[in-house]
Amino acid sequence: MDVGELQTPALVVEQALLTANLDVMSAALPGNRLRPHVKAHKCTSLARAQHRRGHLGFTCATIREVEGMACAGLGGDLLLANEVLDARRLGAVIQDGARVTVAVDSVETVAAAAAGGVTEVVVDVNVGLPRCGCAPADAGRIAELAGSRGLTVRGVMGYEGHLMMAQPVAEQARLTAECMALLTAAHADVGGDLISAGGTGTYAVNTWATEIQAGSYALMDTAYAQLDLPFANALSVLATVVSVSPGWAVADVGLKSLGMDHGNPTIPGATVWFCSDEHTTFAPEEPVRVGQRIRVLPAHVDPTVALHEALHVVDGEVVIDRWPVDLRGW
Amino acid sequence: MDVGELQTPALVVEQALLTANLDVMSAALPGNRLRPHVKAHKCTSLARAQHRRGHLGFTCATIREVEGMACAGLGGDLLLANEVLDARRLGAVIQDGARVTVAVDSVETVAAAAAGGVTEVVVDVNVGLPRCGCAPADAGRIAELAGSRGLTVRGVMGYEGHLMMAQPVAEQARLTAECMALLTAAHADVGGDLISAGGTGTYAVNTWATEIQAGSYALMDTAYAQLDLPFANALSVLATVVSVSPGWAVADVGLKSLGMDHGNPTIPGATVWFCSDEHTTFAPEEPVRVGQRIRVLPAHVDPTVALHEALHVVDGEVVIDRWPVDLRGW
Repeated sequence: MDVGELQTPALVVEQALLTANLDVMSAALPGNRLRPHVKAHKCTSLARAQHRRGHLGFTCATIREVEGMACAGLGGDLLLANEVLDARRLGAVIQDGARVTVAVDSVETVAAAAAGGVTEVVVDVNVGLPRCGCAPADAGRIAELAGSRGLTVRGVMGYEGHLMMAQPVAEQARLTAECMALLTAAHADVGGDLISAGGTGTYAVNTWATEIQAGSYALMDTAYAQLDLPFANALSVLATVVSVSPGWAVADVGLKSLGMDHGNPTIPGATVWFCSDEHTTFAPEEPVRVGQRIRVLPAHVDPTVALHEALHVVDGEVVIDRWPVDLRGW
Repeated sequence: MDVGELQTPALVVEQALLTANLDVMSAALPGNRLRPHVKAHKCTSLARAQHRRGHLGFTCATIREVEGMACAGLGGDLLLANEVLDARRLGAVIQDGARVTVAVDSVETVAAAAAGGVTEVVVDVNVGLPRCGCAPADAGRIAELAGSRGLTVRGVMGYEGHLMMAQPVAEQARLTAECMALLTAAHADVGGDLISAGGTGTYAVNTWATEIQAGSYALMDTAYAQLDLPFANALSVLATVVSVSPGWAVADVGLKSLGMDHGNPTIPGATVWFCSDEHTTFAPEEPVRVGQRIRVLPAHVDPTVALHEALHVVDGEVVIDRWPVDLRGW
């Protein structure tokens, strides 16, 4: 199928750029040094491409992602890097033969893991981002509690999410070192093989974690593109120009096909004015015509992907594959 | 089922508030004075509740919405209030017995309608919002062109979207009058029965349109709640507190379960700090505990609904129905 035949809006992935992104990251963080985060693409076909490169463990953000990965035969070592209060669906996945480890940071989440039939956990440690995770000094206590409930503690995790966009790199490295000092101290109290942390923004400077939970590097977005990373924007939303007026034009991509939390999308060669539910109004530098196809670059990949049913893998103007976004929902 | 048994995050609709919203609007704009916009809920079960109140025509924003409404037996008079460059799927819906009218604003969209097997159109007129719609002075020419292609022109539409939040009401009414003067002048050139316009923000002041395309009034959101409208927030996202730290807590609702283009959601009795993919970090005024259920109010209903698979209709703590969000995608 030709790209021109796709119904718009449609998520489009440039195969060559995706391949390069995957290869560059695999060279930097081979094998189990990388635990790819599937929340950034929600697509088992893309996860399979990461698995083929030797990354056998994956990070998930939702129970549905864990279930979907296991169902796709990619359940060899799944880390749900998130707290849950009802782990019964995870227990069922484990019963079916997958390996699932869940994050715990409290008495309640330890109890939920044990009650749900989960057998392995990591202690989630707050390393500076005000979100989940126990205080570093409490990690040992949580691990002991988990052990007393019969859970195996595989180690610690801690996400320095507030540093993903920190610049310059030297300062980012210094701040990351501070965060990881907290995590490695907690690890000394907890034990286990895993020190799981990091993301696309800190993959190169976080040398303390045993594994990096990066996800965005595969598809990228305009927010991460502001950093000096060796990954290219492989993802765009294919749109059709549906209306042209003097001074502006309108494409059929909007709030329902773009993650908007990082702001407006980017249209090369144009200034984006605003987005509506199904429209983006933009001022093109060169005239566009009604019916013309354009590419819209989302500001944030994760919530953009969650709005679509499929990724269309393209090579030039040819659609060579359609990958379902099969890990949506909860 | 009890609300406490719902897997979170989950969209929850208070039946009593929804019913009141629907009834208040039906009293203000009875029968065909209202053409409910399904983009705000994407749910044929909710559309059926609007249909039962005598609103037999509906507004749609996407071809998928048209297809889904027709498939649900609600295709008596569907207006696709949007331009399309490939109308073949609309032609197929018409072949199957539904009545579908599509907006046109250019030579190209008229040609697409005719080529796709559509037989009825409205001329979309720009009344001040820089988006789709021809210049008012061009409406007659577009209508003539449509007629020459064998299309029946049912009238005009024009969306004063830039005035939905205009305040105070007297100023909003004055500005709406200016916009509608453009639309009624265009209508004089075009002819036909329909002058379709308006939305939840202007339903009470737009007395020029023959029909109002309101949608948000049914479920509402915190943006519209800032206006002095007789509609209540019937929609919330049910969330579970998954982590509590000194000074803040974290709920399992985030960028993938909330439309973020209007900003952060609201948590009654708390200050929202920020949202991540699957988390909202907030400072509660009173202590919350891990496992506690809370309600999160989205800032913008339309893109929020598009992220979920179902609306759960509740009466107090009882889930009385599950309505699929069956009009998602394109």
